[in-house]
Amino acid sequence: MNFKDIIAKKRDGMELSREELEFFADSAGRGSVPDYQLSALLMAIYLNGLNDRETLDLTNAMVRSGDVADLSGIDGIKGDKHSTGGVGDKTTLIVAPVVSCCGVRIAKMSGRGLGHTGGTVDKLESIPGFNSSLSSEEFIRAVNKCGICVTGQSGNLCPADKKLYALRDVTATVGNSSLIASSIMSKKLAGGADCIVLDVKCGSGAFMHDIAFARELAEKMVGIGKGAGKKIAALITDMDVPLGKNIGNSLEVIEAVETLKGNGPEDLRQVALHLAAKLLQLAGKGSLEECLALAQSKIDDGSALEKLADMVAVQGGDSRYIYDTSLFEKAKYSFSIKAKKSGFITSMETEEIGSVCVILGAGRQKKEDSIDHSAGIVLEKKTGDYVEKGDVIAVLHYSDETLSAPAAEKFLGAVTIKDEKPEKRPLILGTVE
Amino acid sequence: MNFKDIIAKKRDGMELSREELEFFADSAGRGSVPDYQLSALLMAIYLNGLNDRETLDLTNAMVRSGDVADLSGIDGIKGDKHSTGGVGDKTTLIVAPVVSCCGVRIAKMSGRGLGHTGGTVDKLESIPGFNSSLSSEEFIRAVNKCGICVTGQSGNLCPADKKLYALRDVTATVGNSSLIASSIMSKKLAGGADCIVLDVKCGSGAFMHDIAFARELAEKMVGIGKGAGKKIAALITDMDVPLGKNIGNSLEVIEAVETLKGNGPEDLRQVALHLAAKLLQLAGKGSLEECLALAQSKIDDGSALEKLADMVAVQGGDSRYIYDTSLFEKAKYSFSIKAKKSGFITSMETEEIGSVCVILGAGRQKKEDSIDHSAGIVLEKKTGDYVEKGDVIAVLHYSDETLSAPAAEKFLGAVTIKDEKPEKRPLILGTVE
Repeated sequence: MNFKDIIAKKRDGMELSREELEFFADSAGRGSVPDYQLSALLMAIYLNGLNDRETLDLTNAMVRSGDVADLSGIDGIKGDKHSTGGVGDKTTLIVAPVVSCCGVRIAKMSGRGLGHTGGTVDKLESIPGFNSSLSSEEFIRAVNKCGICVTGQSGNLCPADKKLYALRDVTATVGNSSLIASSIMSKKLAGGADCIVLDVKCGSGAFMHDIAFARELAEKMVGIGKGAGKKIAALITDMDVPLGKNIGNSLEVIEAVETLKGNGPEDLRQVALHLAAKLLQLAGKGSLEECLALAQSKIDDGSALEKLADMVAVQGGDSRYIYDTSLFEKAKYSFSIKAKKSGFITSMETEEIGSVCVILGAGRQKKEDSIDHSAGIVLEKKTGDYVEKGDVIAVLHYSDETLSAPAAEKFLGAVTIKDEKPEKRPLILGTVE
Repeated sequence: MNFKDIIAKKRDGMELSREELEFFADSAGRGSVPDYQLSALLMAIYLNGLNDRETLDLTNAMVRSGDVADLSGIDGIKGDKHSTGGVGDKTTLIVAPVVSCCGVRIAKMSGRGLGHTGGTVDKLESIPGFNSSLSSEEFIRAVNKCGICVTGQSGNLCPADKKLYALRDVTATVGNSSLIASSIMSKKLAGGADCIVLDVKCGSGAFMHDIAFARELAEKMVGIGKGAGKKIAALITDMDVPLGKNIGNSLEVIEAVETLKGNGPEDLRQVALHLAAKLLQLAGKGSLEECLALAQSKIDDGSALEKLADMVAVQGGDSRYIYDTSLFEKAKYSFSIKAKKSGFITSMETEEIGSVCVILGAGRQKKEDSIDHSAGIVLEKKTGDYVEKGDVIAVLHYSDETLSAPAAEKFLGAVTIKDEKPEKRPLILGTVE
């Protein structure tokens, strides 16, 4: 098979065969085709698209390019949850223990934050001693012991995706729904779960700014999952404003714990509950209404909080931090950002707010950057709230005092205050199943 | 300027500014942007196109990426001629001396053959002693001495084009008219001539298989030339059958000499004469009719043949070969290909016939390959001719006896014989000026 012929075929809008897509993924994973040919094909795919059959075949080929997690040593139904990335999105820390309490095993590989979006592994690592680099054996043992484990990606999972993702990032070929769907789903399929709930974020803090694109992506991912024999559904949820009030690693763990105690912000509680219920429904735990009630009961009786503490302990972390979040190290400085005029907050440019966190040290510009687990933002007001001039909108937390000025300026630039109250946007914009 | 932003702009179908196209060409020429980004942009350009302004700006930027030939040391009007490449196309060897005899200086840089098409430099090097690697000073001195010089490309001409051409070749992004036009025209503009005649080949032996694409390319190239202040015109000529009867390096020199003696095949004479006349017209030597007569007169009085011999001598070649072509070394073996049935030759797949020459050793698969100057094909019959079963259609010439079987088989596969006489195709399919 000649790679140039495959490029030419897609360039001319033709359908690629399964063998051709396998050759593509295999070559990318093994590095046997030069990058300039891979990127030419990526641009041809970006512009001429992949149909559903091609997208599924590419995904399967990327899965086969590397190792697949062997979860056969885990008893019971295995569930997984994935978010396309947002700001203040700590739902995994709530969904995973809730679902685990209902008997669905959570053996989840999770990522680190990059750019304006955070990552669950970074958040958990704000707990002293927490180990996110488990071997396969430790991972399986942890799940069998307490029903839940969240670890970093290990082994040689989807090397083709790793290669293509890095190339797409530098060749302006990220934003194609088939390429995004196959990238996410290859990792989910390699992760080995039986039931998968996807949280497709939509809005100014998400990669998908409009609902049509978010729905297209959700449909492609659900299609791939079903094509691979998984029970799968996607919720499209709002990311036009940060989720909850806390943004930053330990700040988000604290807010997740508050939510598991029944004291969290309503938007976070709602989104987490619906994701948990949808995953429970996929796992055969009843109707959506029954699963919503079931999930809520695991918060109400304190068992989900206990499950999170158990997980932390099994993974070497200090579980006292879960029961007493005042133990978390605080950032050295804080700075209150005040409203410059009175009125309603009509929008928060959420990606910009995510970037403020990167400035404060809570996130990464580049993969290699280290992060400050205590840095971040606590929002006192959000879109739709009325503020008087001088009211505190948010408090910045940071440990390098030179950071407050540029961060505060960027934050204020991201917030719009107007006289008229904005229309309320629903939290859950759609469901694809 | 960020290269990824430029890729994204063209990916989204937007127009690139002159500065962006200059950044593109400059980065390609200097190697300051990775190949995978260049190839992603090439694919985006292939699929979304460049408008005329962008095409001209890219061409000028590629010219500026390297040196420009300084022809100021040459007195008089400088003419150049370019063919997009064909099989049996030895017109330069006729056009250049004819035009030179009429007082237009020919300071021409020419290429080598690659794939199924030949190159003038290879043909001339079949003459013992001929030197095609002249320095700039030798080149100018040669033109001033006898009014004509054909040399290989020297110096750092259009490094951006060199880079992009090589990348296009391996990323299936060759066949875009703007990219072809800017590639050819950047080299023509860097060559420094005042008047340029283009021979855009069209048919089964050309890159342009259909007339619409050939005309589009011709129009783009003429537009670029005019935009750069050149006198320029293009003829679209037939390449659905090899030009003349001889294909192969010394075989083509021999046929060009025969044509300059008035004994050449009619199709070759016609095409060469029209190209020469068009170039003379651009140089202000009269109307097309007058220029046709003028050009013919230089063949009739023998001065064009003498001019070719002079050029060969000035460039170190043995000019006795021009006056007595029996001196050319012969290939060791020959093999006559006979018709397997009676009927009219209705088509000759001309690219395939060019490939037969490569098999025989007369051409190159890769740049580094060496060639056999004496190898090639002499066609006894061409499209439109009637053959009896057993008639010789062509004679293959070669020096490695293992080559005749695969070459003969490929040749026969390229020739179609049917009962009905095919329609005659005009030699000159159009003029763009």
